[in-house]
Amino acid sequence: MKLHGYFRSSASYRVRIALNLKGLSVEHLPHHLRKGEQCAPAYLALNPQGLVPTLQDDAGTILTQSLAIIEWLDETHPKPPLLPMDALRRAKVRAFSQVLACDTHPVQNLKVLARLRQLGLPEEQVTGWAAWANREGLSACETLIAGESGPFCFGESPTMADLCLVPQLANARRFGVDVAAFPHLLRAEAAAKNLRAFADAAPERQPDAE
Amino acid sequence: MKLHGYFRSSASYRVRIALNLKGLSVEHLPHHLRKGEQCAPAYLALNPQGLVPTLQDDAGTILTQSLAIIEWLDETHPKPPLLPMDALRRAKVRAFSQVLACDTHPVQNLKVLARLRQLGLPEEQVTGWAAWANREGLSACETLIAGESGPFCFGESPTMADLCLVPQLANARRFGVDVAAFPHLLRAEAAAKNLRAFADAAPERQPDAE
Repeated sequence: MKLHGYFRSSASYRVRIALNLKGLSVEHLPHHLRKGEQCAPAYLALNPQGLVPTLQDDAGTILTQSLAIIEWLDETHPKPPLLPMDALRRAKVRAFSQVLACDTHPVQNLKVLARLRQLGLPEEQVTGWAAWANREGLSACETLIAGESGPFCFGESPTMADLCLVPQLANARRFGVDVAAFPHLLRAEAAAKNLRAFADAAPERQPDAE
Repeated sequence: MKLHGYFRSSASYRVRIALNLKGLSVEHLPHHLRKGEQCAPAYLALNPQGLVPTLQDDAGTILTQSLAIIEWLDETHPKPPLLPMDALRRAKVRAFSQVLACDTHPVQNLKVLARLRQLGLPEEQVTGWAAWANREGLSACETLIAGESGPFCFGESPTMADLCLVPQLANARRFGVDVAAFPHLLRAEAAAKNLRAFADAAPERQPDAE
């Protein structure tokens, strides 16, 4: 399989963790987002949004959208599971993941921040916007797992929720958010970072890291 | 079951369609988003994001995030299915849904547009922003189903993709987007609108419609 990605993309980072947890090795094909390589016609033919990641399997099948890719990996390579067996617990994990993947990350991604700059907002307001989006999403997530016993977001093994959380916390820090307000999230992050699957997926460990 | 929602919220609209397709009747509890009712402490205790929808089942279980709710409904009430059986087709339906539910709708929701106004952008630029987000997302979706035979987004019966598409097209029109550029999306919308489950879920048919 081939994974089209970018070292610092949160969505690519989520999929890298999933692949590592499943023990799947892939060829990494980096696209430099700040240089606009994701808008090259050959890449747009694979991913019409011009976003990363895109996963191509050996049969040439093309998969887009990180959460859809993670659920596909979980259905086709069930062990270890990234979603609980119980329907209600699955819904909780998906909802937590979507707070970050729907309502947080897309509001602060490169494309949206570039648009804010185009509209004439000064850099300080652009960074403030990104910090706001991260703070809102992570605050909600902290509440969603306040009754969980840990150490991961939802129990004793990592789920899709942890795959979304770890990259988002990295973004939040980059934008100056004080993450000390989120003790349950930090506990889950600490548990995750002890696992090699998470450590090996970190942006700074990727071949295209700058 | 009780559905906390708002007539014009796309995310509530998606869940209303799902409930109708499953033949489930619920009590509708409207929260007037423009009056800020979703930020009342009693509602925040159910949904820490202060977003709609929230579904409460008869056992008091609280579910948030529209796609997580739809997948839970599909797992607990399997007929008619809202996702294909085949893993790859499921991934395609999820990816299409996420283009709209992750990368489109949250970038143009009330909260984000209110923030743009707070930053001093004139109304024309705020509407332009919302139109841009809709155009980008729907263009990608049009490409994703360009090879599909219809009449729905992915085949002969509605899936989660159609539940996301119909409300988003309504938003796009509201923000002045020329949707004639999306013939495959319009074909799917026409097929959906022939079904009573979609028609009954329309914003103008809700008790809180203005």
